[in-house]
Amino acid sequence: MTKPTKTLPRLFDFDKMPRRATISNGLTGQDILSVKQFDRERLAYIFGRAHEMREMVERVGACDLLYGHVLACLFYEPSTRTSASFIAAMDRLGGRVIPITQGVQFSSVAKGESLPDTIRTLEQYSDVIVLRHPDIGSAQVAADYAGVPVINAGDGSGEHPTQALLDLFTIQQELGQIDGLKVAMVGDLLNGRTVHSLTQLLLQYDVSLRFVSPESLRLPMVLMNELIDRGRKVRETHDVADVIENADVLYVTRVQKERFSDLSKYEEVKDAFEITPELMRQAKAKMVVMHPLPRVGEIHYAVDSDPRAAYFRQVKNGMYIRMALLAAVLGKA
Amino acid sequence: MTKPTKTLPRLFDFDKMPRRATISNGLTGQDILSVKQFDRERLAYIFGRAHEMREMVERVGACDLLYGHVLACLFYEPSTRTSASFIAAMDRLGGRVIPITQGVQFSSVAKGESLPDTIRTLEQYSDVIVLRHPDIGSAQVAADYAGVPVINAGDGSGEHPTQALLDLFTIQQELGQIDGLKVAMVGDLLNGRTVHSLTQLLLQYDVSLRFVSPESLRLPMVLMNELIDRGRKVRETHDVADVIENADVLYVTRVQKERFSDLSKYEEVKDAFEITPELMRQAKAKMVVMHPLPRVGEIHYAVDSDPRAAYFRQVKNGMYIRMALLAAVLGKA
Amino acid sequence: MTKPTKTLPRLFDFDKMPRRATISNGLTGQDILSVKQFDRERLAYIFGRAHEMREMVERVGACDLLYGHVLACLFYEPSTRTSASFIAAMDRLGGRVIPITQGVQFSSVAKGESLPDTIRTLEQYSDVIVLRHPDIGSAQVAADYAGVPVINAGDGSGEHPTQALLDLFTIQQELGQIDGLKVAMVGDLLNGRTVHSLTQLLLQYDVSLRFVSPESLRLPMVLMNELIDRGRKVRETHDVADVIENADVLYVTRVQKERFSDLSKYEEVKDAFEITPELMRQAKAKMVVMHPLPRVGEIHYAVDSDPRAAYFRQVKNGMYIRMALLAAVLGKA
Repeated sequence: MTKPTKTLPRLFDFDKMPRRATISNGLTGQDILSVKQFDRERLAYIFGRAHEMREMVERVGACDLLYGHVLACLFYEPSTRTSASFIAAMDRLGGRVIPITQGVQFSSVAKGESLPDTIRTLEQYSDVIVLRHPDIGSAQVAADYAGVPVINAGDGSGEHPTQALLDLFTIQQELGQIDGLKVAMVGDLLNGRTVHSLTQLLLQYDVSLRFVSPESLRLPMVLMNELIDRGRKVRETHDVADVIENADVLYVTRVQKERFSDLSKYEEVKDAFEITPELMRQAKAKMVVMHPLPRVGEIHYAVDSDPRAAYFRQVKNGMYIRMALLAAVLGKA
Repeated sequence: MTKPTKTLPRLFDFDKMPRRATISNGLTGQDILSVKQFDRERLAYIFGRAHEMREMVERVGACDLLYGHVLACLFYEPSTRTSASFIAAMDRLGGRVIPITQGVQFSSVAKGESLPDTIRTLEQYSDVIVLRHPDIGSAQVAADYAGVPVINAGDGSGEHPTQALLDLFTIQQELGQIDGLKVAMVGDLLNGRTVHSLTQLLLQYDVSLRFVSPESLRLPMVLMNELIDRGRKVRETHDVADVIENADVLYVTRVQKERFSDLSKYEEVKDAFEITPELMRQAKAKMVVMHPLPRVGEIHYAVDSDPRAAYFRQVKNGMYIRMALLAAVLGKA
Repeated sequence: MTKPTKTLPRLFDFDKMPRRATISNGLTGQDILSVKQFDRERLAYIFGRAHEMREMVERVGACDLLYGHVLACLFYEPSTRTSASFIAAMDRLGGRVIPITQGVQFSSVAKGESLPDTIRTLEQYSDVIVLRHPDIGSAQVAADYAGVPVINAGDGSGEHPTQALLDLFTIQQELGQIDGLKVAMVGDLLNGRTVHSLTQLLLQYDVSLRFVSPESLRLPMVLMNELIDRGRKVRETHDVADVIENADVLYVTRVQKERFSDLSKYEEVKDAFEITPELMRQAKAKMVVMHPLPRVGEIHYAVDSDPRAAYFRQVKNGMYIRMALLAAVLGKA
């Protein structure tokens, strides 16, 4: 076979094109799988970068930091909120996205092909993979096979580390610091993945924790023991009213009806976890109400106009955190 | 908490990055919900900008006018034609798109979350939201909650203003003017949202209108009365043949079989609304046939090669109109 | 109607914007429908360009060669692998994509609208259309109606030319040449579209071919006769073990259980088509194992770490080939 390009003018003049230099930052080329990867120093680093992302978006909207980089956004279960956040993050950094966010269940990716094969296929096209998958441990499997960084966007009952990071970043942005705060977690603390991950991160700070849940949905024993072993001030209660006066942070999650075998039990307790304007009148002037969303009634709409309602600013912080993480693992921050 | 970024080199040098200046144009920051927002002056302005968009696309394909801007394209019901048009519009203006155009029904966005909450989530990621929703009034609800402009891409039996604008723009582009024209609307005039909206816009011009429909699908009385009250020349008929000779514009819509309780009635009348090459022989040399598409038989394929068949150029005009609107509400036109 | 733009400052200064010049390359403006369009000279040209694309991606990740161009990616049946490959190709060339890759079946595009109408709609928004459709001949229909180039991404039991091109490109990249090679095709050779297309392309080279299949899934007679008529060395067998020692290329495809009316027949023969590490020990040191993917057991996972396992590199070559084709039909390569 002859070498045909010899006689053709070449398409690219690489001397005139920018190289893809990377910055070594401890996260370059790494996977983001668990909150356990983040100590205080790394959190401070990511939060600093996320804050810069916020400034950039507010001032100019977008930049070219990730020009030349492609994100494969692979969602085995739909999550518009999370996938939109990652897509916007990549868009605002000048990168590109392969969106595989809807209907994966109908395509060959799902039909019989193993996760490792799908991952090894997508890494050929992309520089980083964001994975949402219903099975615990799937993000680790993907990371084991991928030659590019994998970011865990939720693996079933496992972890969803970018959610925990954006939660903690929101506390820092809203209240200026984390040490010394009183944080109250409200709702289904037994099954709430976001509560568990945020609690893990908060363990690195000097905070006191309050847990407000129905009796049957209390924080798992293993997590409670870890808190106690590490000398944290912890208290449990059945009613938000017990914690509202002193809380700096009210982290509210949904109590799902379906968790109660006896529906009358649900009706009995549900009011104790609802955040209302009346309840907010008892709260401090400087505090925040957060929620991972979507909410279904656990925070009244009338609370939305309260300046302490931080849940939509929390959503925006998710975009900034994901921008910081994408830039970091791609060696650009 | 220490301020970690102090010691890190900063990522962005804002002095070297372009600011997002906006032009005040009367539409900057506004929602596009209804054709009622458009008087002749504003129509002339948008049509002028759309014409510039056409020139730009034909000469260079794309530009960077909307660099740094992100569009959230939220379709609660699929409409490939409309969503593709908005996506292409944003692409050709250098903006980015979060496409939530398929499968919304499966995701958390639809599962229980209220439209206001979904909108307030997406506005965190984006600079403008395009919404398609099956419920009348939903675009107004979205606009009430969104801090960014909302463009109504169809709210059930409500409005679909960008369609009406592209229809009118097509008449202007094809025939050079609107005043003085004879416009015939054909098909299901009772339920045809596009007919109603275009008629509303045409009320601002000196046109005479002909309405061709089966007896059971005549123009709604309220709209007919408005036309008469405003002194418009109006005539109704049951057969396209009655209007074909004098029409400058033949705006054809679908007559759905399902609208007839008695199918034999449908079979009886349907031929009276079909546009055929034979029929076109009776039409003027300078006139246009339009259709909002998709068509299902009401215009014969043999008519497609007739230079007066404008329906695919009409599709392209949709992209130009949407480019003009996006640039306008984002303060860039 | 007054000409409103007269008094407005114009949005664009075309003298300062790059024109869309095109290079005439024999493929500019052409459709890519069939491998029959590719003689050795054209293959050498595309492979040369694909190799340049590879260099570019490895060195800088992306470029602006297709800035200003929009690809409509229209998939009537989901194929994540192929659509992701085209999207990544366009992304890395600086073009934009309208992704209509999921859920087409629910939208107006599928609901009753004819393929020609959908194509004539999408060509208004885009500069090139990639079509995947379940019906044989549909790509040709689309090309007949489209004013922009159409690339066939699989039309049912018809062709999937970009797959065949990437297969051949992989052989050339892996082994440095094509002439003189011994190529063994393995699996369902009766129904395997990729086998038929690659065989067609290989007919242009001086190769010898081995076909390994169950008796009921042998290569179709018409293709076999063509090979013989054109003087190719051809041999058929029922067991990979018969060809493994001499093969330079082992092109493996899936044998679907569903093809056997008698399942015990399937169980009897399936081992003869499995590629295992034991089998690989008999193969030459310099050879490649290829597979169009997805695989379902026909190549053991333990083979993946063998440097001769080329199937994931083959995936990446697909992106390079599609980049070369997109640039070529758009007159940029």
